[in-house]
Amino acid sequence: MAAYIHLHGHPRVYNLFVSNPNRPSLCYSPMIITMSQQDQSHWSSINADIEAHLKQAIPLRPPLSVFEPVHHFTFSAPKNTAPALCIAACELVGGHRDQAIAAASALHLMHAATFTHENLPLTDRPKPKPMIHHAHKPNIQLLIPDGMVPFGFELLANSDDPAQDNSDRVLRVIVEIARAMGSNGVVEGLYEEFLVEQSDGEGLSDVSLAATIKRTCEKKEGELHACAAACGAILGGGSEEEIEKLRKYGLYVGMRQGYLNRVGKKEKELERVVEELRNLALKELQHFEGGKVEAISSFVVGV
Amino acid sequence: MAAYIHLHGHPRVYNLFVSNPNRPSLCYSPMIITMSQQDQSHWSSINADIEAHLKQAIPLRPPLSVFEPVHHFTFSAPKNTAPALCIAACELVGGHRDQAIAAASALHLMHAATFTHENLPLTDRPKPKPMIHHAHKPNIQLLIPDGMVPFGFELLANSDDPAQDNSDRVLRVIVEIARAMGSNGVVEGLYEEFLVEQSDGEGLSDVSLAATIKRTCEKKEGELHACAAACGAILGGGSEEEIEKLRKYGLYVGMRQGYLNRVGKKEKELERVVEELRNLALKELQHFEGGKVEAISSFVVGV
Repeated sequence: MAAYIHLHGHPRVYNLFVSNPNRPSLCYSPMIITMSQQDQSHWSSINADIEAHLKQAIPLRPPLSVFEPVHHFTFSAPKNTAPALCIAACELVGGHRDQAIAAASALHLMHAATFTHENLPLTDRPKPKPMIHHAHKPNIQLLIPDGMVPFGFELLANSDDPAQDNSDRVLRVIVEIARAMGSNGVVEGLYEEFLVEQSDGEGLSDVSLAATIKRTCEKKEGELHACAAACGAILGGGSEEEIEKLRKYGLYVGMRQGYLNRVGKKEKELERVVEELRNLALKELQHFEGGKVEAISSFVVGV
Repeated sequence: MAAYIHLHGHPRVYNLFVSNPNRPSLCYSPMIITMSQQDQSHWSSINADIEAHLKQAIPLRPPLSVFEPVHHFTFSAPKNTAPALCIAACELVGGHRDQAIAAASALHLMHAATFTHENLPLTDRPKPKPMIHHAHKPNIQLLIPDGMVPFGFELLANSDDPAQDNSDRVLRVIVEIARAMGSNGVVEGLYEEFLVEQSDGEGLSDVSLAATIKRTCEKKEGELHACAAACGAILGGGSEEEIEKLRKYGLYVGMRQGYLNRVGKKEKELERVVEELRNLALKELQHFEGGKVEAISSFVVGV
């Protein structure tokens, strides 16, 4: 099925493979990353720190019937790049990793809760979600993420440190993450995705299908990454200009991932959309200087 | 089915009616309140203020396909007394209603989200939840509350007012509400309730059934009301002693409601449990003086 993608006013045509059940469209697939050894070890170290923070925050404690599934859903969800981007943005503006670790962990928790609900079997889901192992019954798969989201906000609010006098930054980040996860952010993206899935693309014109997919990428992966980068910059003490540049960088990084997750990578027209998003992303980094720029740019370079 | 309730070490026997499908056990039923005209107009005014705050915070705006169900689920959920208790506690410690209105609104949003998810049809729910009109498809009924909870936290974080220098109170209330709604609070209560429903009481001894019901009342209605009262006191500038007394008051108010919601009101033994909880609740108010004591005590007096 051919469709137009309107990106900055330039209509483009590519195959959407909406009818292809093999398209990797429904979850934040971990991306195949080809990057330098130095970058690799940098990201491994960031991801290990986030995981360690979460493991400490979510011990396996009584009642185990509740906390075992919390643990399971938190650590079995596929990795998402938003938490690492949050840390990278914090470091880019001169902040320390510790300042953003709670926000990065909260972002992972909320992504994991979303992923778990996305995979809940429901009667009005026309196509099964990607085959995941359902270790728990539907009611637990509904209930436990409902506890994980408030816990993410608890982690954030508790990261307030009187010694650092950072209450205002923490409150601002709570608003940022609440908005990104809420009805004008990820939830709206999931709703748009649901519309496409429900119709399987039928009944939608190519133009409105393309617009829906663009909106899904913008709201689901885009706003999540935009928020992650902005939060890292806020917590690291970036200027308003830096925060807004990193927000845009995150938006393009996330949208680009959205397209890559949804359609085959070999489509020629898609390649152009993705390349355009990479260029737009890199343009936002021109303002920054120093060794950390290379690190954060690896979200779109060599990927 | 007879069961023992262990309350403060005194085992009590009463009919649980666990096998009675008519028992009003599954939602926060609005309680039949018999109170003075003055109290009635006081609560009407508090509830009207909370509703007005929510209506202003959730306008019907685009995309309507998302915000219409947000509106629907927020305002169609049965009223719960926790938000009004939050305001009453704030006023009792000398605070102004405005200081607690965001927290009260957030508590309603989260209760409404929980109620909506409780009523989601799932394959492993052995008994249908109370007959509610399902105005939306299951996927929307899953998705929209996932946006309402972050929005509650956004309302809270935005109630930070630099003029009042209340960041620390707001952050503390965010932690309180996140804990009450999370895996050690309402989610744990719902899990306990699920266990009883799944077995329909079979396979559980009377003692462990009674313990499970007590834990459900403690975690679901109890912690929600304890948190609501504590948050009101925090935001109204109460002392630590006042906050803890009101937290206990809320716990007893909520647990008492939990019992009243779950079992017939005419059971003699239940009457004693409920009366004991009322007395425990009122004991926590002995510390307080002034006209507002009568107002807040109406959560257990004449009810």
